[in-house]
Amino acid sequence: MKAGIIGGGVIGGGWAARFLLNGWDVCVADPDPQAQRKIDEVLSNARRALPALYDKALPAEGTLTFGTLGEACAGADWVQESVPERLEVKHAVHAQIKAAAPAEAVIGSSTSGFKPSEINAEGASAIVAHPFNPVYLLPLVELVGAQDICDRASGLLRSVGMYPLHVRKEIDAHIADRLLEAVWREALWLVSDGIATTEEIDESIRMGFGLRWAQMGLFETYRVAGGEAGMKHFMAQFGPALAWPWTKLMDVPEFTPELVDLIANQSDAQSGALSIRELERLRDDNLVGMLRSLKRTKAAAGAVIARHEAQFPEPEAVDLPITVERVIPQTWTDYNGHMNEAHYLELGAQATDQFMEIIGADAAYVAGGLSYFTTENHLRYLDELMAGQKVTVTTQVLEGGPKKMHLFHRMINEAGEVAATMETFLLHVSLETRRSVAAEGVVLEKLQGFASDHAGMDIPDGAGRYVGQRG
Amino acid sequence: MKAGIIGGGVIGGGWAARFLLNGWDVCVADPDPQAQRKIDEVLSNARRALPALYDKALPAEGTLTFGTLGEACAGADWVQESVPERLEVKHAVHAQIKAAAPAEAVIGSSTSGFKPSEINAEGASAIVAHPFNPVYLLPLVELVGAQDICDRASGLLRSVGMYPLHVRKEIDAHIADRLLEAVWREALWLVSDGIATTEEIDESIRMGFGLRWAQMGLFETYRVAGGEAGMKHFMAQFGPALAWPWTKLMDVPEFTPELVDLIANQSDAQSGALSIRELERLRDDNLVGMLRSLKRTKAAAGAVIARHEAQFPEPEAVDLPITVERVIPQTWTDYNGHMNEAHYLELGAQATDQFMEIIGADAAYVAGGLSYFTTENHLRYLDELMAGQKVTVTTQVLEGGPKKMHLFHRMINEAGEVAATMETFLLHVSLETRRSVAAEGVVLEKLQGFASDHAGMDIPDGAGRYVGQRG
Repeated sequence: MKAGIIGGGVIGGGWAARFLLNGWDVCVADPDPQAQRKIDEVLSNARRALPALYDKALPAEGTLTFGTLGEACAGADWVQESVPERLEVKHAVHAQIKAAAPAEAVIGSSTSGFKPSEINAEGASAIVAHPFNPVYLLPLVELVGAQDICDRASGLLRSVGMYPLHVRKEIDAHIADRLLEAVWREALWLVSDGIATTEEIDESIRMGFGLRWAQMGLFETYRVAGGEAGMKHFMAQFGPALAWPWTKLMDVPEFTPELVDLIANQSDAQSGALSIRELERLRDDNLVGMLRSLKRTKAAAGAVIARHEAQFPEPEAVDLPITVERVIPQTWTDYNGHMNEAHYLELGAQATDQFMEIIGADAAYVAGGLSYFTTENHLRYLDELMAGQKVTVTTQVLEGGPKKMHLFHRMINEAGEVAATMETFLLHVSLETRRSVAAEGVVLEKLQGFASDHAGMDIPDGAGRYVGQRG
Repeated sequence: MKAGIIGGGVIGGGWAARFLLNGWDVCVADPDPQAQRKIDEVLSNARRALPALYDKALPAEGTLTFGTLGEACAGADWVQESVPERLEVKHAVHAQIKAAAPAEAVIGSSTSGFKPSEINAEGASAIVAHPFNPVYLLPLVELVGAQDICDRASGLLRSVGMYPLHVRKEIDAHIADRLLEAVWREALWLVSDGIATTEEIDESIRMGFGLRWAQMGLFETYRVAGGEAGMKHFMAQFGPALAWPWTKLMDVPEFTPELVDLIANQSDAQSGALSIRELERLRDDNLVGMLRSLKRTKAAAGAVIARHEAQFPEPEAVDLPITVERVIPQTWTDYNGHMNEAHYLELGAQATDQFMEIIGADAAYVAGGLSYFTTENHLRYLDELMAGQKVTVTTQVLEGGPKKMHLFHRMINEAGEVAATMETFLLHVSLETRRSVAAEGVVLEKLQGFASDHAGMDIPDGAGRYVGQRG
């Protein structure tokens, strides 16, 4: 697959990174002599953050090139325009894209405000595909335009891990930016009237309702607030507030140089201790951490990541089954600057889980009341693993019987060296009695199959050892 | 310390839980015959979620009683009013509170809209202390009122893990609710005009900017969006949008029964598959997960939790040093319904970290370029540990030399039984060369002190064993 990226700023760069890291080839067209440097900066953030969302490796990166608009569009499956928000510029660019791109390519505009009818007023056939910064991490893309193109676009966006939201009626600023605009106006008034500083307003969001909105949004939050009496009850309580003088939104604050200075100075006081690059990385680390935690409950954006990951191809076994292939997330590192010891066991536990899947002791099997419980683990830490590095885990069966499963995981770094080993012993159990019980049928058969396949292999270095054993 | 809670709904119950779980005695006054059941429900959610934010045990719970307004106020350090939002009701209740509460008690009102001058119009001396649901998890409390009372209130709120935001000028709806009101109005228009459903609006928030706001708020997000050119550049770009027709906020949608039905029906379609209780627990699990991830970077609300936890008293050693005392968070459990094997190692790693602190190999020591790297771990899983259970870890030194530290952690459940053991072997290293180097000075002295204190103890069951060893 190929994406043509027209305009290589923060948004265009984010699109480039999203496609590239999902295995697409990407050609960027931007006349700015700094374009390559800017794209590289976004890419370096994206390479640090996006793979960390997943517990499997993303596909191999595509190829990144820079070229003319014509070169970017040639043979593209998707052309994304992210040029400045001036309608005459959009018209000129879209005329060129239409002439250069394949007829079947999706042509998207990143516009935050214009409607498709405005973008296409001079004969273009683009849809609005409005993403959110950082494009390589946040799933949302608002799609506005013809149903058939939006349907095709949705499939492609899902394949790169995004969440297409088809806005069914075109409207200035689509949906999310209308909500943002409302808050922005109210916040400007609060600053302008001296009620609150930029920092106080930010704290009022991130210490409170921002944490609710990240997972539930507005209406579901209020549904819960309404309690058992439901949404109607909530509205009966909250509805009358609409008539109260709680907002100055009927009016627009004048955008004077004084107001601009006031806000810029307050923002410097609030966040000036960190550079933009540092703020970006902190933001991305927090997004990765929050998204990984939402992935655990399969809620909100976490569900998008879980669904996307389930589509990744499984790695192929060579001698031993490969039970994990993934990138180390920065959330797994500690004060020593390397992967924390507990996450080696998390990695090993993922390998055990995957091996259970392979022999048929999967989610359905567990739901049926049978599972494996670990009784012992022995880990040897041979080399450091660092955030961003790829790691592969292979699994050797040392013993496989009706009740016992004795496995040996090797954690292999990018250089092909064994960075750690984990010897693990599990009992097959009934989840009802919480006691060991013999496995039967296909699970036992497959386990014994691996055990006999691996029986001729050497006992690995490090198996059967106690802590502190010499030689 | 004692809190008097006047009004025991969702907000009053959340206050009760916040104080109680931080060791305060709480007396609730509410004429509703269902008050005790309602408070119990909130408390059961809170007991499940709040301790999970921390990696140390909270203080022992205070005592909960129910009584008259006078009994709730008697001897209270804090009296919190959370009665319905009708000014005449507030006036009557605050007159009674003033008569019954100690003169030095902080008297707070949970009002979301009224100003202190309105609450106190008939002679009361309350401040506004406006919290956010769920009060037991979200840190924000907007304080409005006299500086000296707000200062005193701030100290008390910080001691129960909250984030007081002193709103310096009184204004209808304080700060956060003005922003919420703005979004609520715009969202009602979008639904009313058939542009988007409640679910689409929620997705437009939680798949995108909600994830930014949970950690950065509004202005810091835009500062980053402005890039290296800074906040002024951002405003130059975004400012003109204020004049665009992007919002219908100048006008208020009529709150007709049809609009109420439309929203209630859409909300049922969106979230009706889960009960309110299930939604609350999902919300709390997600909040715990996101807050724990923010705690890791000490960002936003995570910084509040980290600061609060640092104040918890250390448990006292009996025979062996107690290196962890905590509650198992639900985020540590897996498909088998118990604590996942990897988190036993996380628990053991916390014990090792705490033992390093005890001997002086603390954050400053690590910053100075010396640390310990783990080379081996052996875990035995003897019994299941479940979410919500308290666990205590003791640490025995098996060997302590200039380069070596060989420890044995026992993980002890609520019944006093050893549920798991972890034998761990560490090398003292230079963080520059990443190689082992002899410890010196106080760290070595303290380690050797423990080693000789523990030398007479029996070698623990389970030390020096290999995986699968019999007998």
